[in-house]
Amino acid sequence: MKTYDVVVIGGSAAGIVAAATVRQTYPDKKVVVIRKESKVLVPCGIPYTVKTVGDVDKNLIADTAVTGKGADLIIDEVIEIIPDEKKVLLRSGEEIAYDKLILATGSKPVFPPIPGRDLDGVFTVPKDYDVVKELKSRIEKAENIVIVGGGFIGVEFSDEISALGKKVTIVEMLPHVLGKAFDPEFAEMAEEILKEKGVSIKTGELVTEIAGEGGKVKEVVLKSGQRIPADLVILSIGYRPNADLAKKAGIPVGTFGGIIVDNLGKTLVKDIYAVGDCAENRCSLTPNGLCPMLASVATATARRAALNLYNIKALPTAVFGAFGFSTVVGGRTFAAVGLTETAARELGYDIIVGKFETLDTHPGSVPGSMKQIVKLIALAKTGHIIGAQLTGGKSVGELVNVLATAVTAGMNASELAFTQVATHPLLTAAPTVYPITMAAMSILHQM
Amino acid sequence: MKTYDVVVIGGSAAGIVAAATVRQTYPDKKVVVIRKESKVLVPCGIPYTVKTVGDVDKNLIADTAVTGKGADLIIDEVIEIIPDEKKVLLRSGEEIAYDKLILATGSKPVFPPIPGRDLDGVFTVPKDYDVVKELKSRIEKAENIVIVGGGFIGVEFSDEISALGKKVTIVEMLPHVLGKAFDPEFAEMAEEILKEKGVSIKTGELVTEIAGEGGKVKEVVLKSGQRIPADLVILSIGYRPNADLAKKAGIPVGTFGGIIVDNLGKTLVKDIYAVGDCAENRCSLTPNGLCPMLASVATATARRAALNLYNIKALPTAVFGAFGFSTVVGGRTFAAVGLTETAARELGYDIIVGKFETLDTHPGSVPGSMKQIVKLIALAKTGHIIGAQLTGGKSVGELVNVLATAVTAGMNASELAFTQVATHPLLTAAPTVYPITMAAMSILHQM
Repeated sequence: MKTYDVVVIGGSAAGIVAAATVRQTYPDKKVVVIRKESKVLVPCGIPYTVKTVGDVDKNLIADTAVTGKGADLIIDEVIEIIPDEKKVLLRSGEEIAYDKLILATGSKPVFPPIPGRDLDGVFTVPKDYDVVKELKSRIEKAENIVIVGGGFIGVEFSDEISALGKKVTIVEMLPHVLGKAFDPEFAEMAEEILKEKGVSIKTGELVTEIAGEGGKVKEVVLKSGQRIPADLVILSIGYRPNADLAKKAGIPVGTFGGIIVDNLGKTLVKDIYAVGDCAENRCSLTPNGLCPMLASVATATARRAALNLYNIKALPTAVFGAFGFSTVVGGRTFAAVGLTETAARELGYDIIVGKFETLDTHPGSVPGSMKQIVKLIALAKTGHIIGAQLTGGKSVGELVNVLATAVTAGMNASELAFTQVATHPLLTAAPTVYPITMAAMSILHQM
Repeated sequence: MKTYDVVVIGGSAAGIVAAATVRQTYPDKKVVVIRKESKVLVPCGIPYTVKTVGDVDKNLIADTAVTGKGADLIIDEVIEIIPDEKKVLLRSGEEIAYDKLILATGSKPVFPPIPGRDLDGVFTVPKDYDVVKELKSRIEKAENIVIVGGGFIGVEFSDEISALGKKVTIVEMLPHVLGKAFDPEFAEMAEEILKEKGVSIKTGELVTEIAGEGGKVKEVVLKSGQRIPADLVILSIGYRPNADLAKKAGIPVGTFGGIIVDNLGKTLVKDIYAVGDCAENRCSLTPNGLCPMLASVATATARRAALNLYNIKALPTAVFGAFGFSTVVGGRTFAAVGLTETAARELGYDIIVGKFETLDTHPGSVPGSMKQIVKLIALAKTGHIIGAQLTGGKSVGELVNVLATAVTAGMNASELAFTQVATHPLLTAAPTVYPITMAAMSILHQM
């Protein structure tokens, strides 16, 4: 039986970061990552294999992300964890003993019990090389594609697929696509862009059946009775924690299906940790108090657990998981942090909203200049920022992180308004109207 | 005699923001901006009138930035301030009475006493429409252009001018261009890019004479004896506060030539304020404790003074003026916040440096991906971030503001490492190797 100080199960973002961070923090520890996939996809890059990146083989994380840090890599499947004996069993029959075990088993696509879901041509989007490769080749051959679920993965797929000239329809249950992350005015902007690109959007709609012919998908039937022709259906309804191994080993799982962990990733079983999508990570500013399943959350929780694995090196910040998030729709970036206005009002928070619109270069005559909007949500009494939504060009991808940082630091509108930022004609809005400053000033004026 | 509650002298960034902020904060106050320029340039956009924007008339700030906020605008020159009578005299002979006076008189280019500086073809870069228009037309006609001073304005001009196919030489006294804002390894990257574009760089060199023929510039003579042919010379050595009016009125001026102000912009004379370049604004993280002359600093000080003009509405943040700064050299962005490693060591600070290099998309196969480097400078004992330097693509223009915000909030390496940021394949580095996180982790590992 091989013995390691630290065994990590799972080789995607969280697993890689956990292993690398343990190696860097505790260089004398022997670490192994065990994963069943022969190749690891960049998870967030999956929709972009369709066109922008254009090749599934260009969307891989190299094994050196693990082995280059001095950790071992075993490609095999863990079929059982035996906590009492502090060992794991592999499909090959091998056993591996651990001192500390880190579960980074990720998530699995929700596969709703819609009649017809097993027809040929119906796909979910697992983080699996072979499935994504097959999906890409089917997208290329398809003419009518229906995407069920208008969250960011569905929207990103629709954006890429429509650029191939295919007919794409998104079916979304909520009143808007991206409706969980954004308030209606931002979601509507995204919908407008998709429609201009030729994407058909059916919101407030449910799929009741996927109808087929000769075992192959033929159309999607909606609750309203509408039938949409389809030779390919992509189900992107969401993901659920992959906690099967943990459950089998008696490691407690929470109400939402993830492994129960504390803020350092410790499960309720001694010397076993869980990080990333498989765990019920607590975020400060989400309606249910749980972090969404994002690679950025996964890596942050993995770092936090690994750094403190043998010694408390650095405690979590007060506001963990402001839930920074960004996506691109038809070349326009949409991003968010923390609570939306809708969610904050539903939770009964007393809030003030500050909003500002400007251009993302100065002067606006710089080629490629785009409209940039920042919306801030603050607590009415203290001015503390609890959420933000932004849209603009590519620079919004990092502009949102200014707000992720401000929220994490517990800044209020006054502190944010007086933060002296860098501005440049080609790169940012003008200093006279920097939109975060102006939205924060607007909150101050309402206090 | 006309009477206003608030008179603002100067109509560039600081004056505009002061007037607009007073109007928004105290809507019952009568406000006027008095400026002598008929047209106001976007100051930071001046180098880009050469090519990228391509037209001085496309680089103007509209008067509605003032009048649209309900403030009056008078185009005339204030020739005297009479504090005892609380009024100003205009060149037209008119007198304007004030309750509060805000000086936003800006800065003037340094015009060093080099022999030959008055020859035809020798320019400084004032924020003056007519001069910039003339300079642009002379650049278009010139063949050999020498830029004296390799700070950001000199570098940005050289970048734009070289794109027109002209021969450009930068002469810089310091060992490197951009040598005040960046440590040598970043400055050297910028120099390499400029050299590849054909810009000739003479560092550690002084200009001893500008030689002419028939009253026109012909060549620039260096201390080393070298003579560089030139039909146009641009002096971009720096700016000094324009405090002439203040001095004449007995408003005290500091050691560095700017009007002495407190943290709310109050001068030592009752009811007179000074904001922007004309004042000695205090920044927390600069070697001499003074803010550099940047539009972002100017607008921040203007907002701070205006908001608190009649009532303390919001006090300055603990760390004001982390001195965020960014520029673009040959399509690569360079940006900085706070102290450089060089400056921190010269000041005797006990520091730790964390550095990380990655790509600014994930996977790196996304078209247009660029190398991104983040360097963090932290106090060795506490881990507090006191400076940062960054380079990469356009997204670095906002990435630097994540650090401006972190420094302003007084974050340490641990808090920064655990800040959960938004990442996206097309917009940012991968969450597994987000460079701010990784550089902060590197500091933690060295503590």
